[in-house]
Amino acid sequence: MNKHQYIVIMAGGIGTRFWPYSRNHHPKQFLDILGVGRSLLQMTYDRFITQVTPDKVYIVTSTQYAALVKEQLPALTDDQILCEPDRRNTAPCIAYAAYKIRQKDPEAVMVVTPADHTIFREDLFYKSVNVAVQAASSEDKLITIGIKPTRPETGYGYIQYHEEDAGDVKRVKTFTEKPELELAKKFIESGEFVWNAGIFVWSIKSIIKAFEQHQPDISELFEEGTDKFYTEEESAFITTTYSLCKSISVDYGIMEAAKNVHVVLGDFVWSDVGSWSSLHEMREKDENQNVVEANALLYNCKDNYVKAKKNKVVILQDLEGYLVADFDDVLLICKKDQDMKFREFYSDAKSKKGEKYM
Amino acid sequence: MNKHQYIVIMAGGIGTRFWPYSRNHHPKQFLDILGVGRSLLQMTYDRFITQVTPDKVYIVTSTQYAALVKEQLPALTDDQILCEPDRRNTAPCIAYAAYKIRQKDPEAVMVVTPADHTIFREDLFYKSVNVAVQAASSEDKLITIGIKPTRPETGYGYIQYHEEDAGDVKRVKTFTEKPELELAKKFIESGEFVWNAGIFVWSIKSIIKAFEQHQPDISELFEEGTDKFYTEEESAFITTTYSLCKSISVDYGIMEAAKNVHVVLGDFVWSDVGSWSSLHEMREKDENQNVVEANALLYNCKDNYVKAKKNKVVILQDLEGYLVADFDDVLLICKKDQDMKFREFYSDAKSKKGEKYM
Repeated sequence: MNKHQYIVIMAGGIGTRFWPYSRNHHPKQFLDILGVGRSLLQMTYDRFITQVTPDKVYIVTSTQYAALVKEQLPALTDDQILCEPDRRNTAPCIAYAAYKIRQKDPEAVMVVTPADHTIFREDLFYKSVNVAVQAASSEDKLITIGIKPTRPETGYGYIQYHEEDAGDVKRVKTFTEKPELELAKKFIESGEFVWNAGIFVWSIKSIIKAFEQHQPDISELFEEGTDKFYTEEESAFITTTYSLCKSISVDYGIMEAAKNVHVVLGDFVWSDVGSWSSLHEMREKDENQNVVEANALLYNCKDNYVKAKKNKVVILQDLEGYLVADFDDVLLICKKDQDMKFREFYSDAKSKKGEKYM
Repeated sequence: MNKHQYIVIMAGGIGTRFWPYSRNHHPKQFLDILGVGRSLLQMTYDRFITQVTPDKVYIVTSTQYAALVKEQLPALTDDQILCEPDRRNTAPCIAYAAYKIRQKDPEAVMVVTPADHTIFREDLFYKSVNVAVQAASSEDKLITIGIKPTRPETGYGYIQYHEEDAGDVKRVKTFTEKPELELAKKFIESGEFVWNAGIFVWSIKSIIKAFEQHQPDISELFEEGTDKFYTEEESAFITTTYSLCKSISVDYGIMEAAKNVHVVLGDFVWSDVGSWSSLHEMREKDENQNVVEANALLYNCKDNYVKAKKNKVVILQDLEGYLVADFDDVLLICKKDQDMKFREFYSDAKSKKGEKYM
């Protein structure tokens, strides 16, 4: 255990793809989406708590979810729950955590992870993270964890790396966000690409240096807070800072610009649980490939995802490949593999039926 | 207006085919199933109240629905609401009404009608009823109203009549319940068959005579009540009588046995509103043949029936020919033209999920 290792869990997303199961007031990371008794956030916390002590875990979330985080992770103190007053994408989120942790431990190494992904084969995951932490502790490297791709997924980001590099930490050549299918196929064939899992490892020194170089306006804003973190002034400072700060992702704002970007290849099984289809793959199915999380009777139904509250009886006939999701005031019945449509349903419901359904 | 004309509305059914919209505690006849602001029972009442005064209308229903009848038809007195303590099919229901009305008016002519059918072209309906009432007043005839069939419907009963008979009241040759499609087609081709609408017209004298001849055990039971109708003893008498009475339909128990059965041909438009499909035909549709009684967004949906409470937002994609019915604790999604399946869904839900969903 590296005593300077910190975990930063990004838990501010709203997860519209699982609407209406995930709602604005209760997004995906707070849901027991795998039906195991723990939310994705709790599972993420559980994954790291074997590696660090609880005081080394920081959560960045939206102000509106602070109470949910406290409820789900009671071991954390208020100082460990960083509340964003507005959504500004991942770069300000990471800057906030980095500048705050620097105040406590300038030698810190941060592992940054989304709150809402799943990982199987945790032994292999720890191995990759440890390699990255060790490299980041001793060298000025910005490290991302790459997953060996198993299919030409068009919904993920891809990282191309220098195959010829010796050792486990390879230099990154390019980042590509969500390629077309043909391109994704070529990526897979080439063998030079891995999926971008959105897990980053770097020392506080390296990431702050990178902000100073590539996002000086963000770094100047957060530098102002040096004496305010861990005090009563932090909240007011952050409110002002976020109102002045631009919205930009760390991938675009830092990783694509920096020259010292590296990747550690991971062999573990990873999913961003980004759609009902991906969840369908993960969950236990009946003999007709239906995932049924409901009090349901199915007749001639195949390959569906059925989710409803237990006090409702659901009767389905002649459906194949559908999502049937019934939650309080919303009922959604649609093809479960048409992820791209979900955003349309969500925004149409929002604009035509009103905010209360969100 | 014939001052001896009485209307008996049979309103005891439980209407499982419209489950979960119709429930045990609120079956089809009490629902505003056409979305016009009046229930089918109220529409049946409204149809006759232009022909008789309110004191001539009797409702036979189950004890559990008495309050609903009173609420929906406040003009009726308690004496006009006949409560059956058990379900015994239509023969005992009609015997109860006949023996009770005889007590008030031995010269009465009864028009018996289901509470849950729809009729359009009421002018033609009144014409047929008046022909039947006139004939039943002066002659010992059991008269049924037949509807000219428009399709080889296999869900209805058929009446074959003597075409050669002069006048509007024809002798009946045969009754056939729910024929196979091939037979139904032959019925239509022959031109000798009409649909049995379940509307009967007869004098009290004739129907009681028919009970005495063909169902003497039923007639003996109800004859005992002569001095109890319209008194405080009626309810206890009926409870005992029903516990002793067999269950049999008037079609089977009387009409198929009697020799003086006649039919008056009706030209009006009639439906037993026996299925979601038949209701779909009647209701206003959007440009894609969907009937939408819900706060819904439809994407690539055709020929569906969507019904849900207004406080729920329903989003549907890629569905054709389905019923989507969401009511409180039941959600039913199935092919809307497979009427025969409804009974299976209903009974499976009952046996596997419990009575509370009924």
